[in-house]
Amino acid sequence: MYPKIPLAQTVIQLCKAKGIKHIILSPGSRNAPLTIGFTHDPFFESYSVVDERCAAFFALGIAQKTQEPTAVVCTSGSALLNYYPAVAEAFYSNIPLVVLSADRPKHLIGIGDGQTINQKNVFENHILYSANLKLDLKDEKNVPNHEDLPIFKNLEDKFERLLGLQKGIQTFNEEEINTAINISKLKKGPVHINIPFDEPLYNMVEALSVSPKVIEIPFKESEIEEHILKSCFEDWNSASKKMILVGVNQPNSIEQKWLDELSEDDSVIVLTESTSNLHHPHFFNSIDQLIAPLSEEEQKQLQPDILITFGGLIVSKKIKQFLRKYKPKQHWHIDEKDANDTFFCLNNHIKATPNQFFTEFLPKVTHYVKSHYSAVWSAVRQDRLVKHKQYLKTLPFSDFTVFNKILKSIPDHSILQVGNSSAIRYTQLFNLNKTLEVFCNRGTSGIDGSTSTAIGSAVANEKQTVFITGDLSFLYDSNALWNNYIPKNFRIIIVNNQGGGIFRILPGHKNTENFDTYFETKHNLTAEHLAKMYGLDYVKASDKVELKGALATFYDAGEQPKILEVFTPKAINDEILLDYFKNLK
Amino acid sequence: MYPKIPLAQTVIQLCKAKGIKHIILSPGSRNAPLTIGFTHDPFFESYSVVDERCAAFFALGIAQKTQEPTAVVCTSGSALLNYYPAVAEAFYSNIPLVVLSADRPKHLIGIGDGQTINQKNVFENHILYSANLKLDLKDEKNVPNHEDLPIFKNLEDKFERLLGLQKGIQTFNEEEINTAINISKLKKGPVHINIPFDEPLYNMVEALSVSPKVIEIPFKESEIEEHILKSCFEDWNSASKKMILVGVNQPNSIEQKWLDELSEDDSVIVLTESTSNLHHPHFFNSIDQLIAPLSEEEQKQLQPDILITFGGLIVSKKIKQFLRKYKPKQHWHIDEKDANDTFFCLNNHIKATPNQFFTEFLPKVTHYVKSHYSAVWSAVRQDRLVKHKQYLKTLPFSDFTVFNKILKSIPDHSILQVGNSSAIRYTQLFNLNKTLEVFCNRGTSGIDGSTSTAIGSAVANEKQTVFITGDLSFLYDSNALWNNYIPKNFRIIIVNNQGGGIFRILPGHKNTENFDTYFETKHNLTAEHLAKMYGLDYVKASDKVELKGALATFYDAGEQPKILEVFTPKAINDEILLDYFKNLK
Repeated sequence: MYPKIPLAQTVIQLCKAKGIKHIILSPGSRNAPLTIGFTHDPFFESYSVVDERCAAFFALGIAQKTQEPTAVVCTSGSALLNYYPAVAEAFYSNIPLVVLSADRPKHLIGIGDGQTINQKNVFENHILYSANLKLDLKDEKNVPNHEDLPIFKNLEDKFERLLGLQKGIQTFNEEEINTAINISKLKKGPVHINIPFDEPLYNMVEALSVSPKVIEIPFKESEIEEHILKSCFEDWNSASKKMILVGVNQPNSIEQKWLDELSEDDSVIVLTESTSNLHHPHFFNSIDQLIAPLSEEEQKQLQPDILITFGGLIVSKKIKQFLRKYKPKQHWHIDEKDANDTFFCLNNHIKATPNQFFTEFLPKVTHYVKSHYSAVWSAVRQDRLVKHKQYLKTLPFSDFTVFNKILKSIPDHSILQVGNSSAIRYTQLFNLNKTLEVFCNRGTSGIDGSTSTAIGSAVANEKQTVFITGDLSFLYDSNALWNNYIPKNFRIIIVNNQGGGIFRILPGHKNTENFDTYFETKHNLTAEHLAKMYGLDYVKASDKVELKGALATFYDAGEQPKILEVFTPKAINDEILLDYFKNLK
Repeated sequence: MYPKIPLAQTVIQLCKAKGIKHIILSPGSRNAPLTIGFTHDPFFESYSVVDERCAAFFALGIAQKTQEPTAVVCTSGSALLNYYPAVAEAFYSNIPLVVLSADRPKHLIGIGDGQTINQKNVFENHILYSANLKLDLKDEKNVPNHEDLPIFKNLEDKFERLLGLQKGIQTFNEEEINTAINISKLKKGPVHINIPFDEPLYNMVEALSVSPKVIEIPFKESEIEEHILKSCFEDWNSASKKMILVGVNQPNSIEQKWLDELSEDDSVIVLTESTSNLHHPHFFNSIDQLIAPLSEEEQKQLQPDILITFGGLIVSKKIKQFLRKYKPKQHWHIDEKDANDTFFCLNNHIKATPNQFFTEFLPKVTHYVKSHYSAVWSAVRQDRLVKHKQYLKTLPFSDFTVFNKILKSIPDHSILQVGNSSAIRYTQLFNLNKTLEVFCNRGTSGIDGSTSTAIGSAVANEKQTVFITGDLSFLYDSNALWNNYIPKNFRIIIVNNQGGGIFRILPGHKNTENFDTYFETKHNLTAEHLAKMYGLDYVKASDKVELKGALATFYDAGEQPKILEVFTPKAINDEILLDYFKNLK
């Protein structure tokens, strides 16, 4: 069974031809032709999620994990606007999210009809492409421009004329849909296809009436130009302090041999974040731990000659401060698409995947530059690790000790999804299990949508997904749990410090009523009622013993997904974190 | 105490000068200068709401009730995008919502910093004005355009130069803020002021360092042109079938004497919606009840010569169908701002308030045109009311009987807030208590944000606010209850038919698994856990006796706001409604 409207058939067939498998639908009437079409074709995995804000983040989570374009489908009106936070995250995190919005025909827009807004180009600031499709013609009423029409001699003329116009419209629409989806796949990011439908919306047919043309993605010759490589060699060979800094990076995207080779070069250090998904005994994770205690003198000494970056956005504020103050002479960014001038000294955007660059570049490096750079940093790290361990032993139950425990508890080969922003910042301070794959929405670094993203990620793969979040972020996205697809092995750990604990670290005026209300936004809410409402197992812990007990069985198989809520004492969390950095010195 | 940053002082002082009293703040660091300033000045009523989607609808509810500009304040990044659904509603419902978004300085945008998006003009499709303010200058680093700067001869030159630039920036910002707020007040709608701040953000001072210029709203001479009035008279006096149709309309905005006068003219009928807030024994409410059973022949006979409309968007689909098919010869719309061509026959936009138009127009009408128009419609209505009553007696417990009961139960002089879209459609079928003031978000007619809007409305006035909603709409905006300002006398009534019951009335394919999942989106959720979580009293009813019992004490004073959840049998609701219209014939 297919929707009768040819435009709906066209959209659905092109999604299929382009391999878009996961379709997240929100209820509505205007989008009925799409809903009918997607849900009756077994090629697609269809999901129904009512709250469009959650639906879009859920789709984002699927696309983030699969790296395949994933579609969200909504009705006309404000429904579409609820997608925007996830669209912006997809834009800055390079995630292929395809927004399919049903719309009224043009002649019913701006005349006071219900559920009607100005949908055209509505995501303009944060979208790779907006395709504004045209309504299928049924009769002359729908002809976009009446002045275009000659006076018809007879009905046959009229029919011919309409047929011609419809062919033109069909071709236009096919090309626009192809372009939008191709761009989403090629450039990895969000696109918006706005699709007008006229009533009747619910009619179905047994055979397709159109077979749209599939336009393949143009083959892309992507070689790094010889002169760029050459100039890189020269600089590389003459630099004794080279820093590689990696942001958000897909697991297993770089061959191990290149990582090994980089690790053997004494003039090279590789700084990774939890979201880098790169591991090597010689690499440096926990950047804040490493950098924060450095004196001005030490920073000056450790200033790199060359900085090479790849991957998405950087979590660590301290490395940004360091590199903006002690700028490298050169900053190369390796990325097929964009290069951010994060440190105000970018001078080389190498348009390639990191793996491609290393494959072309590293084999030609014939000697290692003699250097103490790696050794000096290693000594610094050694010192940090000792102090980190010592400090940890002195601590009472708090955010810091809880993150230490829960991060160690996660089973091997899990997917770890982390919320913003305390959760990911704490996570960065600890050595992570190297078998984990780590994800966090760092495109916009919002507290919105983390739970929905994690659930999407969990749905998109067989592995166990564990989601660690703060209480504000969890409560913000509480509707994420209104989702019928949460796998039983999905686990949520909420570190509940009764408000935005992160604000206590900032130079506000804490422990005043004003601060508590407007900055920390303190509360006494828990996840317990939400767990009951949506059928998740719930366990809580308020001290070390309870936490140990809870974790002992938390990852065991169960009949429901599970939530573990850990309550920490908000009054001491911030002191402990600030003292941590003092103690590292 | 004031924020140290002059731009923050400027924004806050101008908000004060313009009489913006209610400020809804969401937590963040970039907006700290604004949060500090607003919350330390007792002129402002400050509220803290974490979820920006709810915060904006909450502000919308305040502005809807007070008709005064109300401000929302958020940090940089995706926070701002969560305002969009409410911004669009404000745009189409002419509600003065002032969005104040903190932003990073321009040189930190688009370079990979956290919580940073492209905020400039982000609501372009649905905003009356976007003011993109400029950063205060502190040193030459912040000068927007380095090329603008001459080479400084000495530091004094440089200082003078910066001072001049800063004055220019200050003037620009003042003018932009004045313009934005003036437009929001004058044209009643949303505006966006984007405000870049550089660190340090938390510094406070004891004295203001700037005193921004307040630009008054230009006096607006608004007289209806004589020739328009004259042509209206001629048409009015020669027409024997005049229909006045009123959409969303503020309570008490039209003088009673004009309503009385219109009601006495036999050639005039006045059709009102629940949201019209207009009452007169001779007026016709329950438009669907009136129109739906009309035969083609009757419709032809009742086709008006002149249609006069005023107010916001129309709920009734049936009146739209009727008037689009049997178009009046003339359609005049009375509104200071816009005129929608809802029936494709608009030929006169009278730029005035309805009260102003009637004041200038009606006293000059010297005779009533002889007509049966009013009498014929009255006979139709009489017939409908009899059949309505008879039908009601035959019905089992269902959405239809529940709306009948709960609408009758609402105490006199309450504010009635109604959700979209079944709730408002059912409400329209019954005679409402004339002392109620009725509101519903019909700008975009979304299911998002109704609860938050109702809470805002409740906060903004002393009267009791009662909110009636369906289950999907209620669950969609569940975070609305995460609000510390809900008055104790606030009441929520949820008519829970376990899904989007409205879809059962549409020509879908109900009672298939596909329909249940993707259209009706059936669920077994209730509000009970949410009530517990957020500290609201909760009572439920599943039959006539329970409903009667619950309503008996529901409006009594209590220690908490209350929720009444009424469960109706979804399998029969749609049949009853469809049969209702059949039975009216």
